[in-house]
Amino acid sequence: MAKDFYGELQLGILGGGQLGRMLIQEAINYNVNVHVLDPDKNAPCRKLCNQFECGSLSDYETVYKFGKGLDMITIEIEKVNVDALEKLEEEGVLVYPQSRVIRLIQDKGMQKQFFKQNNIPTAPFQLISNKEALGNTQFQFPFIQKLRKDGYDGKGVKKILSAEDISSAFEEPSIIEEIVDFEKEIAVIVARNDRGDVSTFPMVEMEFNPQANLVEFLISPSTYSFEIQQQAENIAEKLANDLQIVGLLAVEMFLTKTGEILVNELAPRPHNSGHQTIEGNFTSQFAQHLRAIFNLPLGNTAARTNAVMINLLGEDKHDGLAVYEGVEEVLAMDGVYVHLYGKKYTKPFRKMGHVCIVNDDREMAVANARKVQEILKVIA
Amino acid sequence: MAKDFYGELQLGILGGGQLGRMLIQEAINYNVNVHVLDPDKNAPCRKLCNQFECGSLSDYETVYKFGKGLDMITIEIEKVNVDALEKLEEEGVLVYPQSRVIRLIQDKGMQKQFFKQNNIPTAPFQLISNKEALGNTQFQFPFIQKLRKDGYDGKGVKKILSAEDISSAFEEPSIIEEIVDFEKEIAVIVARNDRGDVSTFPMVEMEFNPQANLVEFLISPSTYSFEIQQQAENIAEKLANDLQIVGLLAVEMFLTKTGEILVNELAPRPHNSGHQTIEGNFTSQFAQHLRAIFNLPLGNTAARTNAVMINLLGEDKHDGLAVYEGVEEVLAMDGVYVHLYGKKYTKPFRKMGHVCIVNDDREMAVANARKVQEILKVIA
Repeated sequence: MAKDFYGELQLGILGGGQLGRMLIQEAINYNVNVHVLDPDKNAPCRKLCNQFECGSLSDYETVYKFGKGLDMITIEIEKVNVDALEKLEEEGVLVYPQSRVIRLIQDKGMQKQFFKQNNIPTAPFQLISNKEALGNTQFQFPFIQKLRKDGYDGKGVKKILSAEDISSAFEEPSIIEEIVDFEKEIAVIVARNDRGDVSTFPMVEMEFNPQANLVEFLISPSTYSFEIQQQAENIAEKLANDLQIVGLLAVEMFLTKTGEILVNELAPRPHNSGHQTIEGNFTSQFAQHLRAIFNLPLGNTAARTNAVMINLLGEDKHDGLAVYEGVEEVLAMDGVYVHLYGKKYTKPFRKMGHVCIVNDDREMAVANARKVQEILKVIA
Repeated sequence: MAKDFYGELQLGILGGGQLGRMLIQEAINYNVNVHVLDPDKNAPCRKLCNQFECGSLSDYETVYKFGKGLDMITIEIEKVNVDALEKLEEEGVLVYPQSRVIRLIQDKGMQKQFFKQNNIPTAPFQLISNKEALGNTQFQFPFIQKLRKDGYDGKGVKKILSAEDISSAFEEPSIIEEIVDFEKEIAVIVARNDRGDVSTFPMVEMEFNPQANLVEFLISPSTYSFEIQQQAENIAEKLANDLQIVGLLAVEMFLTKTGEILVNELAPRPHNSGHQTIEGNFTSQFAQHLRAIFNLPLGNTAARTNAVMINLLGEDKHDGLAVYEGVEEVLAMDGVYVHLYGKKYTKPFRKMGHVCIVNDDREMAVANARKVQEILKVIA
């Protein structure tokens, strides 16, 4: 810890969304003074911190001024001004994850090159600098085009099915990648503290909403074979060590139909694929992130039971003041935990909350989660 | 619910201490706008709510003005101005627990009479209006004198061992009570919502710090016989129904050496005897209190595992800026959850935090808790 334990420590969070909000819920247990910077004056964290500042996360001056005088800075979103963080680091502010890690992960091209250099299995790719290059690549149609920067929550990804799609492709620097014929999307969250302790959460299985490209349904722990789980967890551990990250690293992977594991992408922070840890595991991802950045012993990551997480996305075609339908009905079900994110306005597929459903019987957990998904709606 | 679900509801909490703090940690999940009134400008809740007001909880005008315009008020301490709450109720503010319940419970004499009228087992007692009456009671020495009002956290209770103690006894209206030769102090927390659903948490066992008369050690669930647990839970349920309370009711009881259960006293709010529910039960007492006052279905109260709760009390003879010793060491142990209350200053026996220790092996949970008790200290 930067200061004598607790009470004194001034922690800044870049981003005041739901991840920051859940991090604060946990940070309360440690007497941390939390400062939040977010461009949205209605951000979910605005009323839960010692100081809330409304401002741009990508502006050098804003981030630098926000961080100056704090002891430690962490992030809940990667799209932040890294130059300011680097400067703050030079001036003695602890920045976890480190600015160099954020810089690397901000650029999906650099991420992929890092995988290659470190023998991390990943789908074949090629870096291109503009749309024109799409006509002349080593890949056969169809393939995936991903923006190198600023893709987020399913945005910045396109399928290029044939030459006809090139005209509507992204113009900006991108990576193109083979479409992986995967059986399942999986994820492992790993934590590393400054003394080098590393600990992985059990591998989870995810289903995505095809329309929004967002995690819709997540099951923890996985029931894939011990070997596959071990392999996924080893990859995550190796990545944390290769990066020498301090904090959480979420590793999204594909399990292919031939049983191979390929890393898709990284997030150096609490992640949607770890929300079920709040009720489902002995240590939540938020508690673990705090332990990691405070250089405390890492907590037990084991699952306490089966947990299914579903995102509560704003209904399609609904835009405006959020109204929650069915909360009372789902709370009457056993083992259902509703987390609302305090967002005033809903939009189609906006993440408005999540629900965790626990049950010692895995099939029952899944069945209850499907039921919750049918009942609970966010409309305008 | 008073308003369309969430986001709109303005909830006031009288008291901004640790109970309010943990209630806010949970209320965040429901998008509730929380307003807090507390006389201490450094109160643990001050930075975690939409609006913090520094003011007296016992002043009519202050409480009335605080509550006016809110939708709902709850308490985290009984010592509040009930006349103001009654007025607010008349004007349409929902006050849970109801003002009449708080008024009854504020007065230990009325509490005891209520037990008697409703056939709730309790130790024999007598009401006295001043110290002089102590010389001439139906009780043999030794007995207990308890102030009817304003006793809190072990204050306002005296043992009268012989006639010599009368001169130093309380002058104010009191109850005197036989000293119960108990085997164990036990507690049951019960919740009731406005539609009349009632649900009890499993009975817990407590050990008190003899010097401070505070819960020091609590084990959940109890291993006493099913009959005893059932009886204790039935008493709590009957009390919730007799009182027609909305919200939580903590029922502290003695289990006598002859196997009898006697109710000691009540608290109409989240209570120290329920902190272990955060990690130890499917629903925490704080989540249950919110479900009850929002008139939602009550949650599953079952224990997930053995949980031991220890209070982290300020060390004797230490007074000043709080310093926490041993936090890192206890966090290295498995199943240990530290909750600090954000109090700037420590005093002898001040409640500075609590720790919950979970383990599927009950003896291991107890052994680990004893170890935590030895390691973790709050000094100045």
